[in-house]
Amino acid sequence: MTDKVVLAYSGGLDTSVGLKWLQTENKVDVITVTVDVGQNEDLKDISRLAKSIGSRKHYSIDSKDEFARDYISPSIKANGLYQGVYPLATALSRPLIALKLVDVAHKEKANMVAHGCTGKGNDQIRFDTTIKCLDPNLKIIAPVREWNLSRDEEEKYAKKHGIGIKSKQSNYSIDQNIWGRSIEGGEIYDTEKEPPQDIFEWTTPLEKTLDNPGYIKIGFENGLPMSIDGTDMELVQIIKHLNYFAGIHGVGVIDHIEDRVIGIKSRELYECPAAVCIIESHSDLEKLVLTRHELSFKTMVDTQWAWLVYSGLWIEPLRNDLQSFIESTQRKVTGEVTLKLYKGGMRVVGRSSPISLYSEKLATYDSWSTFDQKDAEGFINLWSLPSRQAMGSSRKAERTPSQKKLSRPKKLIVRDKGV
Amino acid sequence: MTDKVVLAYSGGLDTSVGLKWLQTENKVDVITVTVDVGQNEDLKDISRLAKSIGSRKHYSIDSKDEFARDYISPSIKANGLYQGVYPLATALSRPLIALKLVDVAHKEKANMVAHGCTGKGNDQIRFDTTIKCLDPNLKIIAPVREWNLSRDEEEKYAKKHGIGIKSKQSNYSIDQNIWGRSIEGGEIYDTEKEPPQDIFEWTTPLEKTLDNPGYIKIGFENGLPMSIDGTDMELVQIIKHLNYFAGIHGVGVIDHIEDRVIGIKSRELYECPAAVCIIESHSDLEKLVLTRHELSFKTMVDTQWAWLVYSGLWIEPLRNDLQSFIESTQRKVTGEVTLKLYKGGMRVVGRSSPISLYSEKLATYDSWSTFDQKDAEGFINLWSLPSRQAMGSSRKAERTPSQKKLSRPKKLIVRDKGV
Amino acid sequence: MTDKVVLAYSGGLDTSVGLKWLQTENKVDVITVTVDVGQNEDLKDISRLAKSIGSRKHYSIDSKDEFARDYISPSIKANGLYQGVYPLATALSRPLIALKLVDVAHKEKANMVAHGCTGKGNDQIRFDTTIKCLDPNLKIIAPVREWNLSRDEEEKYAKKHGIGIKSKQSNYSIDQNIWGRSIEGGEIYDTEKEPPQDIFEWTTPLEKTLDNPGYIKIGFENGLPMSIDGTDMELVQIIKHLNYFAGIHGVGVIDHIEDRVIGIKSRELYECPAAVCIIESHSDLEKLVLTRHELSFKTMVDTQWAWLVYSGLWIEPLRNDLQSFIESTQRKVTGEVTLKLYKGGMRVVGRSSPISLYSEKLATYDSWSTFDQKDAEGFINLWSLPSRQAMGSSRKAERTPSQKKLSRPKKLIVRDKGV
Amino acid sequence: MTDKVVLAYSGGLDTSVGLKWLQTENKVDVITVTVDVGQNEDLKDISRLAKSIGSRKHYSIDSKDEFARDYISPSIKANGLYQGVYPLATALSRPLIALKLVDVAHKEKANMVAHGCTGKGNDQIRFDTTIKCLDPNLKIIAPVREWNLSRDEEEKYAKKHGIGIKSKQSNYSIDQNIWGRSIEGGEIYDTEKEPPQDIFEWTTPLEKTLDNPGYIKIGFENGLPMSIDGTDMELVQIIKHLNYFAGIHGVGVIDHIEDRVIGIKSRELYECPAAVCIIESHSDLEKLVLTRHELSFKTMVDTQWAWLVYSGLWIEPLRNDLQSFIESTQRKVTGEVTLKLYKGGMRVVGRSSPISLYSEKLATYDSWSTFDQKDAEGFINLWSLPSRQAMGSSRKAERTPSQKKLSRPKKLIVRDKGV
Repeated sequence: MTDKVVLAYSGGLDTSVGLKWLQTENKVDVITVTVDVGQNEDLKDISRLAKSIGSRKHYSIDSKDEFARDYISPSIKANGLYQGVYPLATALSRPLIALKLVDVAHKEKANMVAHGCTGKGNDQIRFDTTIKCLDPNLKIIAPVREWNLSRDEEEKYAKKHGIGIKSKQSNYSIDQNIWGRSIEGGEIYDTEKEPPQDIFEWTTPLEKTLDNPGYIKIGFENGLPMSIDGTDMELVQIIKHLNYFAGIHGVGVIDHIEDRVIGIKSRELYECPAAVCIIESHSDLEKLVLTRHELSFKTMVDTQWAWLVYSGLWIEPLRNDLQSFIESTQRKVTGEVTLKLYKGGMRVVGRSSPISLYSEKLATYDSWSTFDQKDAEGFINLWSLPSRQAMGSSRKAERTPSQKKLSRPKKLIVRDKGV
Repeated sequence: MTDKVVLAYSGGLDTSVGLKWLQTENKVDVITVTVDVGQNEDLKDISRLAKSIGSRKHYSIDSKDEFARDYISPSIKANGLYQGVYPLATALSRPLIALKLVDVAHKEKANMVAHGCTGKGNDQIRFDTTIKCLDPNLKIIAPVREWNLSRDEEEKYAKKHGIGIKSKQSNYSIDQNIWGRSIEGGEIYDTEKEPPQDIFEWTTPLEKTLDNPGYIKIGFENGLPMSIDGTDMELVQIIKHLNYFAGIHGVGVIDHIEDRVIGIKSRELYECPAAVCIIESHSDLEKLVLTRHELSFKTMVDTQWAWLVYSGLWIEPLRNDLQSFIESTQRKVTGEVTLKLYKGGMRVVGRSSPISLYSEKLATYDSWSTFDQKDAEGFINLWSLPSRQAMGSSRKAERTPSQKKLSRPKKLIVRDKGV
Repeated sequence: MTDKVVLAYSGGLDTSVGLKWLQTENKVDVITVTVDVGQNEDLKDISRLAKSIGSRKHYSIDSKDEFARDYISPSIKANGLYQGVYPLATALSRPLIALKLVDVAHKEKANMVAHGCTGKGNDQIRFDTTIKCLDPNLKIIAPVREWNLSRDEEEKYAKKHGIGIKSKQSNYSIDQNIWGRSIEGGEIYDTEKEPPQDIFEWTTPLEKTLDNPGYIKIGFENGLPMSIDGTDMELVQIIKHLNYFAGIHGVGVIDHIEDRVIGIKSRELYECPAAVCIIESHSDLEKLVLTRHELSFKTMVDTQWAWLVYSGLWIEPLRNDLQSFIESTQRKVTGEVTLKLYKGGMRVVGRSSPISLYSEKLATYDSWSTFDQKDAEGFINLWSLPSRQAMGSSRKAERTPSQKKLSRPKKLIVRDKGV
Repeated sequence: MTDKVVLAYSGGLDTSVGLKWLQTENKVDVITVTVDVGQNEDLKDISRLAKSIGSRKHYSIDSKDEFARDYISPSIKANGLYQGVYPLATALSRPLIALKLVDVAHKEKANMVAHGCTGKGNDQIRFDTTIKCLDPNLKIIAPVREWNLSRDEEEKYAKKHGIGIKSKQSNYSIDQNIWGRSIEGGEIYDTEKEPPQDIFEWTTPLEKTLDNPGYIKIGFENGLPMSIDGTDMELVQIIKHLNYFAGIHGVGVIDHIEDRVIGIKSRELYECPAAVCIIESHSDLEKLVLTRHELSFKTMVDTQWAWLVYSGLWIEPLRNDLQSFIESTQRKVTGEVTLKLYKGGMRVVGRSSPISLYSEKLATYDSWSTFDQKDAEGFINLWSLPSRQAMGSSRKAERTPSQKKLSRPKKLIVRDKGV
């Protein structure tokens, strides 16, 4: 009986070459799986292509809602940004796709799964870790990583085997889902150069954006966006709407130097209009409803959360523990935030909450009624006490000719018998 | 002999009323001090006003360079932002002004110092802590805090005593220095409303900004900006230039909910064009030259640094310790960053460094020469090992009917004699 | 109608003087409350004493189980130690006592509550914060703090009013409950001196301890101790048993320099036999069942938790959020730990768990079957990559005569128009 | 010309087999190096043995002082303990030995270095990372890791080639240097069992320890121990003395579950009498002289420092940055600490410093002169403010029937044009 392998298939060059290669070189039956996480491609085309290259069976799985509910939602609550800027779009989709691969493998009684990742990127870690955790008995094949094919060689191989790739050929390697679009390759590798305009698809070039600012009000309940301008919507709809609305205002481009898990620095370009708007609004609202102690500690929790997810450790128990912390805080994150978007820039210009901790009466310098200013003097006396003690002590130390005033009887003790 | 008090004098309502009050009610001689940290006001006017209200002696101290060198510079290296957004402009100036007050008090043999802070703000903590640390014997008087005057009462008092205030009367309370401008009061207190345009002075309204993007290249050496577009400049010049250049592009407005030291939440508006540009560039450059371990830990150090400075603990020994950490990292922060500014938005579009840790050869997916992709498999096997063990263990736990399989000999031990 | 005040009454000097004073000077009716958290005193004596000094009504409330369940249990799960050593015994009891005070005040329709804390300690913060949070309308009176009485004056006042104090007079101020005993005052204030033996009551002097080591096996389920040497017991029983058993082995003394919330350094002595044994066992067991990621982050969570509880912020929302994190980890903390106790020393000498993450096969250097040693090479190559890049870059920088090789067109740009 | 390899040679089985193997199988010339870090072995024997197995040239390098000065000293200042308990003895020696290997390789113009580490431990990571950083051109050979030899096979190979091993054969794998002794293997792998007494060599069995407690006073200057009982000594002498003195009191045994870098949990036994005493004293003294802000942050710095060193990242730039922080704090760590040692237990019983931040006058509850108790009321009012606001807000939320009172105009906006 021939071995069966379940391949994550995108329709691109890497996975198409992999699909052929697995059949030809590994002599295995290949079942292909495309998971729809909002990459906005024609799934029927991909299915047809897979079949034409030899897939025995093709699965198209619509996981957009599951992706939004189980992966993007926790990330919103965690203000999920790796190294402070990257909304983890690709990183969030990988454990979901891995889960689907394992499910199909079980259903099809396959003993292997495969993906098209290279050995230099993050995705291999995300796929492999999740798969190994879910089913340690499944063998993982990563053709591109194993055979060390360069892009040129892949193209030759594709041509030779008559593989027609669906994606328009470009210099860039693109991954996209509803939460964002990542662009790698080509000129981007030169960190000194402004990225060329033609790599962007979701955001309008600044000079072509609307001439009037756009205002949009996002309503949150328990940490999740629930409405736009007062209208309740499903999360997937809210994200799509914001990708469109912020995109036409040129908002959502991210350009930074990123540390990959495997230790390589990389220049990364992303377009994430909805993610950028939602996370900015969400974290702004948190400042209104969480105490300063919560805000300060949650920053560390969020940072750790994003690091785990970026690093392929979605399934690590700590992620769950952090999630419990986060959920506990999000019960209060209810309210509305108004964003102003204009020619690539975005700013929160208003926020409110039925359980706001902000009190105008307390904040204003015009009214003293609710606050005894004398309290501040006592507070300052104790607040500054440790630093004052330290200053006093260091003044004393300076006055002392030498700190070497420790007791020294100077009789040598010889108790040293070696170790 | 009459007591002498040294008053930090700005020429505004609070300190003018305080100046009169100290003489009239406290029967003391008042010496006034105005420290120039780039607030861009006419120091001669202020001096004249002080004298006219009864100041026995007035000091105008130009501390712009000292402020840039000893306070702003460390903050740049620390990417100094309180709660992730506020560049600490006012917070940085307070310990410097306090230092000058104490210096003048010593010179004039005064036994008291005074300032115009209220009991609800942060500045009283910054002034008082620094003064108490520098000279615990100086008595501190804060008339507004002590006499609980409302703004109305202050205005009546001023009128009655013929005090002419220099500042144009406004609903807002402004503090500004070379590193930023902070605006409080009036409509801003309504967190739901977009701030009115007329509160801004340093940033051009978005619709009136230039129609072409502005590019600017900032050169850093050892963590500090040293040049603009290739021309070496003094730090004060660089800051002034960027305040102007980013300001005309509408860049530098900050609007957020802030936690004051004394525990009150407050909505704060700032204009900090130069600070925003410099810190964004600086932290972007750090991503190119620091290792991921350094970046990750420095984020915590920077956060703690900003918290201390915001909280009036400039003089706390920990600030010095953190500074030592920061200095150690900054030896490598040399390079150039290009910013693109356009209608209120700003983005780093290029960066380079002679000691960059980025390697195009390593990053690119096109070339395998310098990297053995097989390494990744070993890496992933060990990287995922703890999570895999945890998954295996939890699978085992699920299969086990009950976790209560601990040894239980069930002979009751009665050794309890109470405590 | 006379005002009513509910006073936390211990039977000691401070609260007895307070009880009289409140009636005499404040002309209020006093209701007294003694909360039994295991302080091991005769509650009837205390009640009689209170009545004899004039208490209108006395409440004796047995809260030992509530204390163990709602306060000590969370602390065990959090390995609750302030500054790494203090098991928070007194700190944990304060919010519970405050809760009872408020309950009685509501029941008795009193508008005031009172306690015997001074203005230099931590307990006032714990009481006041909890009370203010639970009912902001209750007025708080702290006679000792307000009237600045010294101990001498208190004693004179007691004598004059014929107040007989129940507690044996000593130089030390003692607070005790089931979780520990704290000792302050007298010779202890000299940080150079070994504490005198007579201050200890729960721990046997080292020279009088048993000559054979004691072994004890604590069984944990979901993070809580459930059995001793295989016998299930209630938590209160387990704690009592360990206080006795560890105490006779001389285990449980803590002596350190502590930072009080109000900023004063203090030398503190504690006896906490059970707490020390349970927390040591608990944290040792965690190392067996939690992943290294969980252990590392939980250390930070635990530290923050202990800080909040020590600082009187039991009721702060962040404590709840941290608790959610902790609960999520504790589902796995099941197993048994064996302690060896001997003449003041204690060591974990064995531990096991049905869901242990330890695998002898993996750990041993004798067997390679389950582990491919080659993986390590790939791992090391990537693990060391960032540091290697950094070393390479710094070598390059050293070879370069000057880092100042940034581009410098040297045409002065005069765009500076001031701020 | 034959290739040359420089081998780190201990005289044990692993490296002796490696020495023969490299010559026989790899056909290379082997130069052997033994670095003396206080392992207390006969270096001449080792040299003779190396020669007898075929070493072309043997280096015995006495690095005890260098080890104490450049590796142990920074670790003392960092209270270097991995996972809170392990003093890093082996971990600290590896980068030093690696440095010597590279030095000898350069001197001998060898192009390879070798060590006897297996693929499951931490040491391979420490050696390889340091070597790769110091000279990326050196090839690293780890025979045991590469050829996957089991202990049995090694012994057979040794016998067959007439290799006489110097170390007494035992079930345990020992590594020792002046800072500690680590024991692995044999019965220790059973985490439930108390370790057998015969594995210990530096610490006296509890029942045979002295019957009187031992007191010892360690004097510190700038964070380093400089004297014992008032007598100045070199650091190496102090360590030797404490290893002896604490050892005869049975102090210094560590038994815990450790997370290795490669992700395996392991049960580890150590004997580190001097390290345990010095770090306990040092961190106790820090509590006397550092502010609470410093103590709290330094705990995080120390934890990160220990993690880096344990993980083989001694040479990582972050370690240097952390060291700068630590040095800044240590300028104040001067004073004396008295330890009491008794039958396996140890306790600090006294500490003093000329620059102590402790003030008996402030701490005592008997004297109010230096402290205004009223300050505390103001402090508490502001300290508790955020939590009080949060409680008020949550009470309000409970009273409100539904939080869903956000504005909802309910006109559906159809702006969604897809992503």
